[in-house]
Amino acid sequence: MHIDIITVLPELLESPLSHSIMKRAKDKGLLQVGVHRLRQWAVNAYGQVDDYQYGGGAGMVMMCEPLVNAIEHLSQSRTYDEIIYLTPDGEQFNQKTANQLSLQQNLLLICGHYKGIDERVREHFITKEISIGDYVLSGGELPAAVLVDAIGRLLPGVLNDETSALFDSFQDNLLAPPVYTRPADYRGWKVPEILLSGDPGKIADWRYEAAVQRTRKRRPGMAEEE
Amino acid sequence: MHIDIITVLPELLESPLSHSIMKRAKDKGLLQVGVHRLRQWAVNAYGQVDDYQYGGGAGMVMMCEPLVNAIEHLSQSRTYDEIIYLTPDGEQFNQKTANQLSLQQNLLLICGHYKGIDERVREHFITKEISIGDYVLSGGELPAAVLVDAIGRLLPGVLNDETSALFDSFQDNLLAPPVYTRPADYRGWKVPEILLSGDPGKIADWRYEAAVQRTRKRRPGMAEEE
Repeated sequence: MHIDIITVLPELLESPLSHSIMKRAKDKGLLQVGVHRLRQWAVNAYGQVDDYQYGGGAGMVMMCEPLVNAIEHLSQSRTYDEIIYLTPDGEQFNQKTANQLSLQQNLLLICGHYKGIDERVREHFITKEISIGDYVLSGGELPAAVLVDAIGRLLPGVLNDETSALFDSFQDNLLAPPVYTRPADYRGWKVPEILLSGDPGKIADWRYEAAVQRTRKRRPGMAEEE
Repeated sequence: MHIDIITVLPELLESPLSHSIMKRAKDKGLLQVGVHRLRQWAVNAYGQVDDYQYGGGAGMVMMCEPLVNAIEHLSQSRTYDEIIYLTPDGEQFNQKTANQLSLQQNLLLICGHYKGIDERVREHFITKEISIGDYVLSGGELPAAVLVDAIGRLLPGVLNDETSALFDSFQDNLLAPPVYTRPADYRGWKVPEILLSGDPGKIADWRYEAAVQRTRKRRPGMAEEE
């Protein structure tokens, strides 16, 4: 899979994309991520990519021309399955969307900044608008890193058995059950005995029940979602 | 405000915490962020901080002892208003929570990794569990960076007028209206005339109506939330 990212702040993405699972995915050749500085498509020698908004008000807006030039330039090299704009008013990202996007070949992510991007770019070039949650951030860079991580770890071969994604929260519309490790008694707080029983059937039942209870309590409604 | 972060991967947080708004908040002395490597509280000379989970199954669990030692060590220097564990099954982070947390003085964020942390740490030390969304990531580092960004930009003095948070999405239970900047005509796609009218009253009405429409379409139910 190949993911391109257009941003005014490529520096911000450096460390999230070069450690942990992302590093492993890149080292194995399973995921290539290209980070592109928007300013190289600026409208003038000052590197301008934003301007005041029509109608007045605080906050700059990212201009059409640099973004469209960037999108069209990158689209010459590959056909994107989705051109995604990260924005708080996009559709809410969830595990299902992560699963779907992990099946694509080429994604292009556009990071907004300031007040966002000119609406005409959204109307004519963006194929999917995604929000990682109902909160406002300084820009789309962290959301882009979140997407790359959530998607990248689902690519076959990226995770080994030890970190398998199959038992994660959400993969079966259930939150994960509680987990424990040594010592069995820490300051008098004990691990549930059943987990020490060595009985795989009972342990599986306990985990399923604990997952159901936790889901009912913390995400009522999740189990009913398709 | 002071935010401490406990992580097995401090490197991953380097660039998100040293650019853009976060850099400005730190430079102005409005926000200090301390990133602490969990391994310095490891249980042995090998730097062990995780172990196999009781009951069997793939995935390592972060042990009680290093985490508790880290929490207790850091708690000697300051009293935390909240000790927050970033986990996909936590309460869902939103703008309201960001606003509330921005009023605190000291926060401690715990980043999970692998299968998560031993349940006993959650029961006895964590005061708040937060999820940035219903999807699984490789660890709690990106969620921690998201929290720091969402909270940090709300601290008085961090944003200037140009980037004011007051008109962001969610601050009034409405998504933001569309924004436009020059040119007024780009490839035949025109900016709505009313934004060029110079009539502040009409523009404000148009923006409010556009925000309401967008919210109804994209987040039905949001306007009814308290």
